[in-house]
Amino acid sequence: MTRDPLVVFTPSGKRGHFPAGTPVLQAARQLGVDLDSVCGGRGICSKCQITPSFGEFSKHGLTSQPDALSAWNAVEARYDEKRGLKPGRRLGCQAKIEGDVVIDVPAESQVHRQVVRKAASTRAIAMDPATRLHFVEVAEPDMHVPTGDFERLAAALEREWGITGLRADLPVLAGLQKVLRRGKWQVTAAVHRDHTGGPPRLLALFPGLHEAGLYGLAIDLGSTTIAAHLTDLDTGAVVASAGVMNPQIRFGEDLMSRVSYAMMNPGGDAEMTRAVREAIDTLIVEIAAEAGIDPALILEAVFVCNPVMHHLLLGIDPVELGQAPFALASSDAMNLTARELDLAALPAAARVYVLPCIAGHVGADAAAVALSEAPGRSEDLVLVVDVGTNAEILLGDRSRVLACSSPTGPAFEGAQISSGQRAAPGAIEAIRIDPETKEPRFRVIGSDLWSDEPGFAEAVGAGGITGICGSGIIEAVAELRLAGLMDESGLMGSAEQTGSPRMIADGRTHEYLVWDGSATGGPRITVTQGDIRAIQLAKSALYAGARLLMDERGVDKVDRVVLAGAFGAHISPKHAMVLGMIPDVPLDKVTSAGNAAGTGARIALCNIAARAEIERTVREITKVETAIEPRFQEHFVAANAIPHKTDPFPELQAVATLPKVAFGAGGDREGGRRRRRR
Amino acid sequence: MTRDPLVVFTPSGKRGHFPAGTPVLQAARQLGVDLDSVCGGRGICSKCQITPSFGEFSKHGLTSQPDALSAWNAVEARYDEKRGLKPGRRLGCQAKIEGDVVIDVPAESQVHRQVVRKAASTRAIAMDPATRLHFVEVAEPDMHVPTGDFERLAAALEREWGITGLRADLPVLAGLQKVLRRGKWQVTAAVHRDHTGGPPRLLALFPGLHEAGLYGLAIDLGSTTIAAHLTDLDTGAVVASAGVMNPQIRFGEDLMSRVSYAMMNPGGDAEMTRAVREAIDTLIVEIAAEAGIDPALILEAVFVCNPVMHHLLLGIDPVELGQAPFALASSDAMNLTARELDLAALPAAARVYVLPCIAGHVGADAAAVALSEAPGRSEDLVLVVDVGTNAEILLGDRSRVLACSSPTGPAFEGAQISSGQRAAPGAIEAIRIDPETKEPRFRVIGSDLWSDEPGFAEAVGAGGITGICGSGIIEAVAELRLAGLMDESGLMGSAEQTGSPRMIADGRTHEYLVWDGSATGGPRITVTQGDIRAIQLAKSALYAGARLLMDERGVDKVDRVVLAGAFGAHISPKHAMVLGMIPDVPLDKVTSAGNAAGTGARIALCNIAARAEIERTVREITKVETAIEPRFQEHFVAANAIPHKTDPFPELQAVATLPKVAFGAGGDREGGRRRRRR
Repeated sequence: MTRDPLVVFTPSGKRGHFPAGTPVLQAARQLGVDLDSVCGGRGICSKCQITPSFGEFSKHGLTSQPDALSAWNAVEARYDEKRGLKPGRRLGCQAKIEGDVVIDVPAESQVHRQVVRKAASTRAIAMDPATRLHFVEVAEPDMHVPTGDFERLAAALEREWGITGLRADLPVLAGLQKVLRRGKWQVTAAVHRDHTGGPPRLLALFPGLHEAGLYGLAIDLGSTTIAAHLTDLDTGAVVASAGVMNPQIRFGEDLMSRVSYAMMNPGGDAEMTRAVREAIDTLIVEIAAEAGIDPALILEAVFVCNPVMHHLLLGIDPVELGQAPFALASSDAMNLTARELDLAALPAAARVYVLPCIAGHVGADAAAVALSEAPGRSEDLVLVVDVGTNAEILLGDRSRVLACSSPTGPAFEGAQISSGQRAAPGAIEAIRIDPETKEPRFRVIGSDLWSDEPGFAEAVGAGGITGICGSGIIEAVAELRLAGLMDESGLMGSAEQTGSPRMIADGRTHEYLVWDGSATGGPRITVTQGDIRAIQLAKSALYAGARLLMDERGVDKVDRVVLAGAFGAHISPKHAMVLGMIPDVPLDKVTSAGNAAGTGARIALCNIAARAEIERTVREITKVETAIEPRFQEHFVAANAIPHKTDPFPELQAVATLPKVAFGAGGDREGGRRRRRR
Repeated sequence: MTRDPLVVFTPSGKRGHFPAGTPVLQAARQLGVDLDSVCGGRGICSKCQITPSFGEFSKHGLTSQPDALSAWNAVEARYDEKRGLKPGRRLGCQAKIEGDVVIDVPAESQVHRQVVRKAASTRAIAMDPATRLHFVEVAEPDMHVPTGDFERLAAALEREWGITGLRADLPVLAGLQKVLRRGKWQVTAAVHRDHTGGPPRLLALFPGLHEAGLYGLAIDLGSTTIAAHLTDLDTGAVVASAGVMNPQIRFGEDLMSRVSYAMMNPGGDAEMTRAVREAIDTLIVEIAAEAGIDPALILEAVFVCNPVMHHLLLGIDPVELGQAPFALASSDAMNLTARELDLAALPAAARVYVLPCIAGHVGADAAAVALSEAPGRSEDLVLVVDVGTNAEILLGDRSRVLACSSPTGPAFEGAQISSGQRAAPGAIEAIRIDPETKEPRFRVIGSDLWSDEPGFAEAVGAGGITGICGSGIIEAVAELRLAGLMDESGLMGSAEQTGSPRMIADGRTHEYLVWDGSATGGPRITVTQGDIRAIQLAKSALYAGARLLMDERGVDKVDRVVLAGAFGAHISPKHAMVLGMIPDVPLDKVTSAGNAAGTGARIALCNIAARAEIERTVREITKVETAIEPRFQEHFVAANAIPHKTDPFPELQAVATLPKVAFGAGGDREGGRRRRRR
């Protein structure tokens, strides 16, 4: 009895019987095996490479003979000669099934291949971008059936690739006829699928088989910096990353001052919109040049940003975001074209996706963090904190996710700190104070050496030590507490009280001298009482926001904490907890997610299903508005102490000793005065 | 050898040499060019604005260098600063001629602006526009449920009006929040439904109950004129009609010379696109002003046009339309926004619908005629002829509709006729020749009196009799045949042969004197043998096209004939049939449809279902390409005789007597020579 050959595909394990002579690609498609092809089986794109295995496979219940596939044909030989086929590889569209066989689909031949991410990240990206390439042969014009060139292209894409209802923007239509003729009616179409049910769109057309790839941009549009990752839409690889300062800084350092600028200056919002779009254009040109890529190949961009930047990017006056009830003009995700945003560096038809905003204070950047860190898929209760000028906070697990934003101010970024500066070479980023000697040692950005190690001065170089950045000031304040130089209320002691000559009187308060470079013309870097108060305000706001979500959820502890944001990557978990920035958890339960917002943008760029997922997630998130919650103020006041006035922090106590010192006349007199001043 | 610079004014074509340094206004006045001025050249009224064109103009036999006019002077600079001069514009009184140059006089700078005869027809249309107003009360923002203002508006429209999946373009979103608050959360939304299954779109939002209505434009974009009807989208009433000359005339009088311009001049297509879009913008501003309507209320526009204008409007190089196989870039209907077409006079989100093209020679204008005259709904077999520079011909009934285009040339519009002119005041539009006395009487545009009636001279006025327009020349040729002054072959007799002193020798042929105004400084208007040959070529092409469709359909007679086109409205059925322009039918079966293309545009503007209908109809129409049909040439030759060499025309014989005369030595010798010359 004869039967059709049995084919087993690995790694999927999908299997089926096919008549002898069936091409492997066709068998894969019928079984729904994830095997790529751009040229539709014409033996020119080489995307469908497979590796047959021969021998006895008891696991699969078959024996694969050496002649289980047809012999090499002329197409494969020509391809191998011109481009080289790896040993053991075949072209799936050419090799025909002749007997039982096990066929492996290597990772690079899978449509939805996974992008390897750093160990720290919590989820892999499965490649499934919205825009894909399709090679087609288009019918030539016929005077007896006078349809348009575009309509014949659309018919070919429907016939060969099942793409129905194709549309094209005018700039793409304008270039269509030349490309069709240059390619002699063989072209590669870049087609964008709309995950919201809109029609597929032709974004670009290339003559012949297009082999130069397609690219997308994941753009993290921050108040201070704009960061872009140029990503290969085939492999998911980041081919170049670049950042520029947000030029809107000249209209206001923080978001609220930009909103004020728009309120006070007619046309100010349009001015800021123009500025940021121009900066993005410049960034795109630069990043494409750096990667050596034609910007015409960048057909997608994904933006994540806070609500004010969101509105200013879209050309919407952000004035309503500056006052209760903080109404967004639109909260849903946006599907736009580069032309609608006047982004001249991109092809006019390039598609722009802007993630949805969660609330008037919780933007698309927070949505991107939710996409990247996926608290809604967590088995245990996770607190995700994206630390920036505002902190966005997510709390949740599989049952429910809550979100809020808390106005930490810019202290965590080194602003409003006497010796503060942005994270840049020369900035102190880590500091330790010896509990016995009270002497400091520190590390600066640009060098791996500590200040008490040999060669430190040379490693720092001519630029010298210039200031202290966000992670440095957090560590400094925590170390002052651990060294007994500062009490629970945040008050620093005098040289006399502490026995350290580094405590220097500064009016009625004291400052701690970290570094005195004045002998060599450098700065004198201290931590002042004012610096500590600024950090206290910031960390109290952050902690109060987290506590508010915990109240809403009905818990007084969380299982783990994820610190997100570029800054989060540099915070020491122990110091953050000494400070009382985050709720008390075991130290090994505090992890950093790096630039989670940027990662979320990359996920949405590389995987179309992720767009639908985050839109659904955002609708389901419980939003908590800190500005109108009376308990927020209570939590804020209680969190002023370091680490906390009332919460016990047992996990912290197990790993760190906090000296019981008190330097104030009346305990928290200073703190009280500070509170009145708010 | 140096000579004075050559200046060519468009659209008039008047030309002359002027010493370097001559102001443009002065040159225009000396040539009798129609250029306005109120201040007499002092640079303050700005009425004399002109647009110089630079580049190579083979049509005019000159090359215009960028320095052909003097540089901007202080007067122009001050005017531009205070009032703004459109890009490319100069003040004719300030700019001085320095070299050869082509100068366009835009419509608004002409004293005697063209009277466009494309008047709106009165045909009733069932009102169901794509865009409608909906009053809603929108939920106020709630910090506990922080959706965007747009999302709450969309929810209200869904709740109260059943509108689901609303979208809005960015410019509409940008204005949303102010309107919602001004209206105290009561607003009127203008929502556009997409008949192709796309999502509904918010085009505009008005505070409170909006009572000022919405408007749409039906635009008939012709090669020569652009006509617009501003239509109340509630009542369907045409509140204003206006027309301007198509400024592309300066790049070429007819379509093929514009295609040539695009082929010969890199960027020439973009230049023509810009010109026509600017003219449309100007027309929109004027028509809105005339009607006293805020252009912000014009939320829809529908365009009908031939394929070349279609491509140039959309920004697509028409080069493929100039050569077989006449491939359209896209043939389907277009759903666009004003912004995509750079139409700045309309709100950016206003929706533009362009009817589908039938074939590379049969455009959206023919589709509009099919929509207006609906041959596919006819019980009897109807021939619909849209007479213009090209004739579009439809033949059909309920069972099947066929279409073709025939290259009649511009003779029917008065071009290439010795005394020809466009239909404008002073043009002879109707003529009768007494069969006994051979004396003519005629009517001119602007007067209802015949030339032999009392008061005629006063009625014509100071402008006098200036030429003969399309309908006038058709009647003149037919009357010459009826009066026995011209034989079947189209040859005119001498004064001796005919007994009429109005037959004047002109070389080897004769011309018929219609009017001699030379005594009073006016023109001498004759019909020359060349004029008759031009009309013969045009009518043969028209008849041959109709016959080709009849062959395809397998009939040798039709039941009725509809003459469409602004010009069709003025053709006398009897004269058309004497000429043999159209197949023989009873005279009462020849009707005029007026500007059927314009009517079709209005139908598509006012009735959304009509859009789906015409898209379906166009797909079902059988297209016949005259350029590749050998029988077309046969039909063309046979149709050269007046009315026809072989077809009998019994219906015509019943109502008119065609004298049997023959003036040539060898019968059709002249005709034969003419044919070789093609």
